[in-house]
Amino acid sequence: MVSKHFIKALADVVGKDNVFVDEADRAVYAYDAAVLDPVVPAAVVRPVTAESLGRVVRLCHDNEVPLTVRGAGTNLSGGTIPKAHGVVVLTNALNRILELNVEDLYAVVEPGLITAKFAAAVEAHGLFYPPDPGSQAVSTLGGNVAENAGGLRGLKYGVTRDYVMGLEFFDAHGDAIKTGARTVKCVTGYNLASLLVGSEGTLGVIYKIVLKLIPQPQHRKSMMAIFDSVSGASQTVAAIIAEKILPATLEFLDNFTIRAVESFSRAGLPTDAAAMLLIEVDGHPAQVEEDAAKVEAICRRLGAQRLRVAQTAQERDKVWEARRAALSALAKLKPTVVLEDATVPRSRIPDMVQAVQEIAAKYNLTIGTFGHAGDGNLHPTILTDRRHTEEWHRVERAVEEIFDRALALGGTLSGEHGIGLAKAPFMVKETTRATLEYARRIKRALDPKNILNPGKVIGEA
Amino acid sequence: MVSKHFIKALADVVGKDNVFVDEADRAVYAYDAAVLDPVVPAAVVRPVTAESLGRVVRLCHDNEVPLTVRGAGTNLSGGTIPKAHGVVVLTNALNRILELNVEDLYAVVEPGLITAKFAAAVEAHGLFYPPDPGSQAVSTLGGNVAENAGGLRGLKYGVTRDYVMGLEFFDAHGDAIKTGARTVKCVTGYNLASLLVGSEGTLGVIYKIVLKLIPQPQHRKSMMAIFDSVSGASQTVAAIIAEKILPATLEFLDNFTIRAVESFSRAGLPTDAAAMLLIEVDGHPAQVEEDAAKVEAICRRLGAQRLRVAQTAQERDKVWEARRAALSALAKLKPTVVLEDATVPRSRIPDMVQAVQEIAAKYNLTIGTFGHAGDGNLHPTILTDRRHTEEWHRVERAVEEIFDRALALGGTLSGEHGIGLAKAPFMVKETTRATLEYARRIKRALDPKNILNPGKVIGEA
Repeated sequence: MVSKHFIKALADVVGKDNVFVDEADRAVYAYDAAVLDPVVPAAVVRPVTAESLGRVVRLCHDNEVPLTVRGAGTNLSGGTIPKAHGVVVLTNALNRILELNVEDLYAVVEPGLITAKFAAAVEAHGLFYPPDPGSQAVSTLGGNVAENAGGLRGLKYGVTRDYVMGLEFFDAHGDAIKTGARTVKCVTGYNLASLLVGSEGTLGVIYKIVLKLIPQPQHRKSMMAIFDSVSGASQTVAAIIAEKILPATLEFLDNFTIRAVESFSRAGLPTDAAAMLLIEVDGHPAQVEEDAAKVEAICRRLGAQRLRVAQTAQERDKVWEARRAALSALAKLKPTVVLEDATVPRSRIPDMVQAVQEIAAKYNLTIGTFGHAGDGNLHPTILTDRRHTEEWHRVERAVEEIFDRALALGGTLSGEHGIGLAKAPFMVKETTRATLEYARRIKRALDPKNILNPGKVIGEA
Repeated sequence: MVSKHFIKALADVVGKDNVFVDEADRAVYAYDAAVLDPVVPAAVVRPVTAESLGRVVRLCHDNEVPLTVRGAGTNLSGGTIPKAHGVVVLTNALNRILELNVEDLYAVVEPGLITAKFAAAVEAHGLFYPPDPGSQAVSTLGGNVAENAGGLRGLKYGVTRDYVMGLEFFDAHGDAIKTGARTVKCVTGYNLASLLVGSEGTLGVIYKIVLKLIPQPQHRKSMMAIFDSVSGASQTVAAIIAEKILPATLEFLDNFTIRAVESFSRAGLPTDAAAMLLIEVDGHPAQVEEDAAKVEAICRRLGAQRLRVAQTAQERDKVWEARRAALSALAKLKPTVVLEDATVPRSRIPDMVQAVQEIAAKYNLTIGTFGHAGDGNLHPTILTDRRHTEEWHRVERAVEEIFDRALALGGTLSGEHGIGLAKAPFMVKETTRATLEYARRIKRALDPKNILNPGKVIGEA
């Protein structure tokens, strides 16, 4: 536990009303969206200025109290599960757009700003912030940066790290670090901003983010392609990319996911389809028409039974909202949902989809598969009940086999959900021991007291 | 000096013919393209396999001999100037394309491969590797990664770091580190690949690079806009971006540079113009036509006297080759050429161009200005003679004032030329002491014997 003296010092910095020590208050911050045991923190603190955030970090440092920064807690790998003797630091009071520079195509924001709110504010100026993690309606930009959040548009537009031009953050001592710039080009010093992106709060506490913006695409067109075989759909994904078309989104849903989504959202999805693709192309209207025609031809050639083009923005939005509800829809079906994140080079999507089907059969498990097929990022979703010990063991073995198959196909353990606590033990499967040691040297040098979100990404350093 | 025993050990690893100890051989590697005093290394070594490169690093580590990796030596900030008791490691024998994956849009290359050769190989498959530093005809991809090289296409297509998906490199101990993936999305562990990009050889020795590729644009159009005032040209730059048009290139040349280039390359440039813009738009043909028409209208509105559109690919290439010859053309005019690299947010280009003119007048110096105006990256070029002590002092003061003015406009010390030795002392102007210390902690932890290109980027750690 932390001392009363420490709690008093926190209250002096952020105000009494922004320090929470009651059991009920703390219990809310004991878990995130990962399937892991909750850990109730010793205290929760909510700084309302960047300056007080820095003083909280310094206090934690001086008192050797570990701290876990939390945005919306939508993390899927345990990245925001705190230590029992540690503090959870909430960023939701730091939620301003500090600058939106339309001429120079960038914005400066605070970490607690909600992703979708920011995207809408930017859109109002004819600009575009593409990263759109599934949780964007509630997730924060600080959380997105800490996790290098992806989303549906990775294929054409990249992920969060591709939009972080600069960062200001507090190091483990509470000192302010400034890295990157408001310019596209900057080689002044080490690229610390990119190092921080995806470091899951283990190397610094972010208080200011400079994000790159781009002009909004002029036009977009959404299509739904319905297949009576999974392999037809997955081969279509590979064929579209091989034709050098880069759709803005290229989503795959298997029958299980389609049915779950449809029963949840009533969007009119074809529940009898073996699989479907949701495809959106965007850009100049002429480009959009050409790409859409090519995509349609490929779909038909590879066996699409039906093709539906959204005729209105409402129709389009309805389908995308349904897709975004996939996790919620699946989560309703069983007490425990394990959402995996294996990612392979795009051309190996057919192999990976098949591998997941084989693993489901081998371990006698229900696995729905959907995801961002265009960038090779699938989300095999295992529906289970963690209280069934025997089944849970099968789930664990299935998850490990999913990792192994993805790696064997030239892929990676995690495309966008992070390593957190959940995957830290598996890191050596993908990389070398020397690589892990290289990362740990960085962590130990920057955070010798190991107070910044300990245990995440690199395990216990 | 290094011991005979050490030289013998190097020869055992790379072969006698690949170790150079003669004074004449070593002298060639004493300098790069920066205006700094040469330093002759103790030995030069040329590994012909990645495995032997790793053994060379380990040998240097065990013998505490500093090593500076050198690609083509086109560095403009002293990044490849070695230590007198150190070794220069050449990568030019490691120059293969290991994989070119057309379906999955990536390539795996060795560090000594020449940028332009790679770009051409990729183009032959209908793909595009956009980063095009001015030195691309001779520069190496390893050097580009180590320096985070930019080029003419930064505005629309980004810089080298935007294309590095993964790296394999040797750490200071000679252990192999593997980071990143062959997929667009990867959050497995710290983003070490991005940390290495631009770290100027101080954190590791790269032996394998995974580069992202994109489909080639279908169509392009090049224009030359000629102005009778510098401010007309610079305001046009800001106006084009403000209209949310992203040209593939948007280059600025002042009269001094135009005349130098024309006398060097005879490309038919308008030597009477106060300034000119070279603009290329690319993409779908319909998009290209629309963008070109809008650009033309903006140029005319802001006072362009003449507008020339390249009618053939030959005509286009001739103009771009002339532009690429700008540094060579300027370098012929005086014994010493100081090529600066101040970068500002794009909308501040008019202010920065004016600032450079004021500085030239104030210090009574000849400064030609050209550069990648579209991404705010200007290259004020001071023509001087370093042997004239009094003038050289004025040059030094002018350079520092260029830095100060760029920073005051919200810019950065270096857009693409690196920090190296030349700008290391100025780092604290842009960032905080704590930031420098943060970077130095990383360096000391990863390279405790300080053998990897010591003194670069962060000064003496």
